[in-house]
Amino acid sequence: MDTIIIKNATLIGGQTADILIRDNKFAAIKPNINFQADKTIDATDKAVIPAFYNAHTHAAMSLLRGYGEGLNLADWLSAVWKKEATLSNEDYYNGTRLAALEMIKSGTVFFNDMYFKSPLVLAAVRDMGIRARIGMTFMDSMNSETYNDNIDFIEHFDRTNNEMIDIAIAPHSIYTCSSELYLKCFELAQKHNLTLHTHIAETQKEVNDCLKEHRMTPVQYLSSLGILNSRTIAAHCVHLTQQDAEILAANKVTVVHNPCSNMKLASGIFPYKLHKAAGTHIALGTDGSASNNSLSMLGEMKAASLLAKVSSQDAQALPAEEVFKWATSNSAQAFGINAGRIEIGYLADCLLIDLNGVSFVPEHNIISSLVYASDTQCINSVICNGKILMENHIVPKEREIIAAAKKFIK
Amino acid sequence: MDTIIIKNATLIGGQTADILIRDNKFAAIKPNINFQADKTIDATDKAVIPAFYNAHTHAAMSLLRGYGEGLNLADWLSAVWKKEATLSNEDYYNGTRLAALEMIKSGTVFFNDMYFKSPLVLAAVRDMGIRARIGMTFMDSMNSETYNDNIDFIEHFDRTNNEMIDIAIAPHSIYTCSSELYLKCFELAQKHNLTLHTHIAETQKEVNDCLKEHRMTPVQYLSSLGILNSRTIAAHCVHLTQQDAEILAANKVTVVHNPCSNMKLASGIFPYKLHKAAGTHIALGTDGSASNNSLSMLGEMKAASLLAKVSSQDAQALPAEEVFKWATSNSAQAFGINAGRIEIGYLADCLLIDLNGVSFVPEHNIISSLVYASDTQCINSVICNGKILMENHIVPKEREIIAAAKKFIK
Repeated sequence: MDTIIIKNATLIGGQTADILIRDNKFAAIKPNINFQADKTIDATDKAVIPAFYNAHTHAAMSLLRGYGEGLNLADWLSAVWKKEATLSNEDYYNGTRLAALEMIKSGTVFFNDMYFKSPLVLAAVRDMGIRARIGMTFMDSMNSETYNDNIDFIEHFDRTNNEMIDIAIAPHSIYTCSSELYLKCFELAQKHNLTLHTHIAETQKEVNDCLKEHRMTPVQYLSSLGILNSRTIAAHCVHLTQQDAEILAANKVTVVHNPCSNMKLASGIFPYKLHKAAGTHIALGTDGSASNNSLSMLGEMKAASLLAKVSSQDAQALPAEEVFKWATSNSAQAFGINAGRIEIGYLADCLLIDLNGVSFVPEHNIISSLVYASDTQCINSVICNGKILMENHIVPKEREIIAAAKKFIK
Repeated sequence: MDTIIIKNATLIGGQTADILIRDNKFAAIKPNINFQADKTIDATDKAVIPAFYNAHTHAAMSLLRGYGEGLNLADWLSAVWKKEATLSNEDYYNGTRLAALEMIKSGTVFFNDMYFKSPLVLAAVRDMGIRARIGMTFMDSMNSETYNDNIDFIEHFDRTNNEMIDIAIAPHSIYTCSSELYLKCFELAQKHNLTLHTHIAETQKEVNDCLKEHRMTPVQYLSSLGILNSRTIAAHCVHLTQQDAEILAANKVTVVHNPCSNMKLASGIFPYKLHKAAGTHIALGTDGSASNNSLSMLGEMKAASLLAKVSSQDAQALPAEEVFKWATSNSAQAFGINAGRIEIGYLADCLLIDLNGVSFVPEHNIISSLVYASDTQCINSVICNGKILMENHIVPKEREIIAAAKKFIK
């Protein structure tokens, strides 16, 4: 289908309009559009809002949801790494499909991944019709076969439709990658014009070890290697000095805040006011299912906003509208994707939100209700790149995907 | 209907059993019960768990959801109080019904309320079939008519079925009630054998003002008045000394933690380790819709657990099983209600949880998935006191209640 018309949609500001989607873009937004589209959707009592862009996750870890519960980051990582070593190719495929299903059901149409076995992640992503940035993990401990597989995948990846699916270079962190490996990764990213996706300053221990070894903070250290630029996606950035935040801002790095994971692993509290003062570009992510344990950006927005308020002792910190931007347009922008807004010419990624659900009654403010009061139950339909991925709460392959994932644990 | 049989239920430990409910109690729990009940429910692929008990809320504030967003507690209270003055009797009734609907849809079958116009709250609660403890608010600023209405309501309330609906005396807080009013409230509670429901140590300002005026902390002050005992329900208890926590524990006060409200209003971080060390009895509450803005105990459990972990820098703090107990049996116990467990002889309050939803796949641990990964979408059916309040996601009066609440804003 090439055209979709959404009738009687409530826009974020409260106005009512029809929305015409042609191919993969918004083509018209105004009341009473008179057009015979291939598909008509009645959006009476529904809001149409931008879909979510999850800026940091490890999708296939959905199979490890609830695994290693209650451990701190270091112990949890070693438990998870042991379990990951037992995953089969089929597990990677099924785990990524399960994660994509959870994301679609919670209104997410893009995820920035960092994991292994990229060809299987790619197959799952294609299968689900979702956008992704497939980050190939690099670590000192990887064997040469895995390293060569990564290089081979990069060299042969067809990037013609890269607003839909693209790849990224993902050196894991400063405690798993040498400076040589970081520099090699940076060179690969530069050569192929790819984003570089890494974890930075997630725990105090990481900072302390780095200060001891390099006499620099993690941000100073990576800056000294020259790898920070506008194509760097830095997950966490929890333990920072003011100068660190300024370095990240000056280099136009995208900082990805993952509040639930940081809280659940007791990693630390994201320094909202510090980032805000420095002007860093911030996007929102869920991290993997094993440390959250949800992939819903709705829950993540609420956690981010509440944590910013209580930690900065300011009820006006991180209002609903700002965190919604982190979860949509800020994230899309970080990956060079022309989405995150319901505007003519933007990619047609949007959600239909049921305004008759209790969370939206009374309807004082749609974005406030979405961030603070709602959950996935409000997400009626999901459109990605002009294609319907979920309609009236139903994702076509849902039962099959869940059955396949259930096999894993048995 | 007097008997319900739930077939093939998954219990929390993972076993499968049938559950027989006779009148308002669990009568048998074992595999293959052979009994012709008035109603049979197939619970294949569903878990049966205790329903939630919300230990602190202001139900009718559901009409003020999203109102006064971004203000701190003091400014927010004065904005809300102004708005509340405009509420009609019909608003109190419709607001309480809307809140009860939201609670039922999110698996809550009991709420401990603190609000005004108790006869209207009572009518709404009866109408919805939910349990409640209706707290009549007392404040110095109330007029004598309201005061006399409260006394009249107490004198004439029929308490014969008080496990279902009972009343409570609710002096608002030390900054809105004189010591004389607190003592009068305590006397009323003692005379009628009622719980006393109040806010304690919610903000640092409350503590500072109390220290200035009385040279005592709020807990010391209320203890000096002699009003703290096992029938005291103390909401918040955020800003405490070690001695305060010990006083609360020694007097067997129930402390109600409301993490989302405390974070959203930037009131402060609940001192989990302090309460844990003192051994206070803790229950969980959502507070009102205007400061959360959800009434879902699922979201509240996750917020409580994550906040305890990050604030105590310990990923093992407040595990899923412990916070689930706060939200169920601890809360029921605080109100003298024999519920919160799926066990023979306990009141038949339970939820059917859909284990085929993405949040429960793979099913490593039901309680972990419930607390960290799920949301209201997983709640298939709700039983309260042996009566079905929601079946297959449908509450009979839903549309009518939402239509009535929508009128309020117009």
